[in-house]
Amino acid sequence: MADLLVTSPANPRVKAVLALRRRRERDATGLTLVEGYEELSLALDAAAVPRTLLTCPELYSAAGRAGSQDIGHQERLVAAARDAGAQVLRLGRAAFERVAYREGPDGLLGVLPLPRRSLQDLDPPDDALVLVAQAVEKPGNLGALLRTADAAGAHAVIAADPVTDWGNPNVVRASKGTVFALPVATATGRDTVAWCRRHGLRIVVTTPVAVRRHTEADLTAAVALVVGSEKHGVDEALSTAADTQIGIAMCGKVNSLNVSVAAAVVLYEARRQRASKRLHD
Amino acid sequence: MADLLVTSPANPRVKAVLALRRRRERDATGLTLVEGYEELSLALDAAAVPRTLLTCPELYSAAGRAGSQDIGHQERLVAAARDAGAQVLRLGRAAFERVAYREGPDGLLGVLPLPRRSLQDLDPPDDALVLVAQAVEKPGNLGALLRTADAAGAHAVIAADPVTDWGNPNVVRASKGTVFALPVATATGRDTVAWCRRHGLRIVVTTPVAVRRHTEADLTAAVALVVGSEKHGVDEALSTAADTQIGIAMCGKVNSLNVSVAAAVVLYEARRQRASKRLHD
Repeated sequence: MADLLVTSPANPRVKAVLALRRRRERDATGLTLVEGYEELSLALDAAAVPRTLLTCPELYSAAGRAGSQDIGHQERLVAAARDAGAQVLRLGRAAFERVAYREGPDGLLGVLPLPRRSLQDLDPPDDALVLVAQAVEKPGNLGALLRTADAAGAHAVIAADPVTDWGNPNVVRASKGTVFALPVATATGRDTVAWCRRHGLRIVVTTPVAVRRHTEADLTAAVALVVGSEKHGVDEALSTAADTQIGIAMCGKVNSLNVSVAAAVVLYEARRQRASKRLHD
Repeated sequence: MADLLVTSPANPRVKAVLALRRRRERDATGLTLVEGYEELSLALDAAAVPRTLLTCPELYSAAGRAGSQDIGHQERLVAAARDAGAQVLRLGRAAFERVAYREGPDGLLGVLPLPRRSLQDLDPPDDALVLVAQAVEKPGNLGALLRTADAAGAHAVIAADPVTDWGNPNVVRASKGTVFALPVATATGRDTVAWCRRHGLRIVVTTPVAVRRHTEADLTAAVALVVGSEKHGVDEALSTAADTQIGIAMCGKVNSLNVSVAAAVVLYEARRQRASKRLHD
């Protein structure tokens, strides 16, 4: 099938793509937007297939992005998406710049099915390392948490009592596409607690008021590490349900860390403990 | 001295404040902008004195920010700044909203002397834990690095081969004001290496290509932990000068961490090792 060519920024297909910036439209259609070579590569690697891939070849060369050293990279990605079943829609520059939401667009924008999973879809291993993010508000923070969790080898990330949806384009972007690679789920705090109990995960809540340091808790068995919202932290219900509460030492003047930074510190401490235990077992 | 009242957004004082958004103007005047109760509190706590404090009392109540539960907090901050020698300039809402650079301004904006230190001003202790950030590009990342370094108890942060200035308002903001609390300096990579050698700090470069994991290096003695720019990492000259190169394990699909997240992981590992060593000594 030949690729379609669209030149008018007022084209109905362009408008349909623009509509996906609204959460209501994402929820109704089950679709979201993924922009840029790097994020789309990760999504494709994770077997996510774009319904539609919007391209603007004249913007390919403008992008001096890591991982896209030559234009051939972009052409290969487009071919792979087409082979996987994506419809490719070629846009004129004016039309593409209308739909692009990043500064310095690189000529690639995909419309993909939302990563929507419930707790029932998650299958934690015996030594599960799960990150629970409760009511995190900023899409950039939720995405950064995912990138961090992926790097640290977490098995899944649960958004408890979510404020932002996983399909928010800024979540996808800050996650560097890991939202398609890492199992993610959405649930109430109460259901998250029940799921942890059912699967034998200890619930470890990170909170500034904890007396115990994050390095003093045993994080080697199956565990759900919980971080809370930017303003209010983890709520009382989830804190009360915790098996352990831990705090990261604040040694200077500030009284908190960015939530994705805090998650990184505890996740990598869990990994360190596990590697050290394997060495000594 | 009675506070001045300015109502016109075209007032020359308002324009002079606006000019400080440009780096050239900051460099020429040695001044920068600090907006909001939280950041200004930290700057004042760190003995930084605003030259001028712009206020807009009718915006005080609009700010539901942490740490500013009641209007009295803001009035006390203004009084403290005035006592320390700041000229207080009361602005009408239109004029204040012109100078404010945040969304949802809380009616406080200070003009402060830039935190400008050179390596010669730094006095590292015997067990120094210093963070070196080479050529970090995004002001938000440089500020986040500072917040993290402060929390982790770093003694100083050096911007090597800087791209962004410490006085950039977005650095100040992302740093949560710690740019005034933590000793910061600016230097070339070469001078930074010489300074580390002179003060007996081991140079430990964090890079994805290192074979040694960050948990496998001894970080208990005086050390300079080096992280690099978002795109290119630490350059060859600084990497070659390193006593040790370490890498943070990437266990998932992404091949890098955000630079402030990487800094947090290595800084907190250094702290953990030091606490553990004290326990066993």
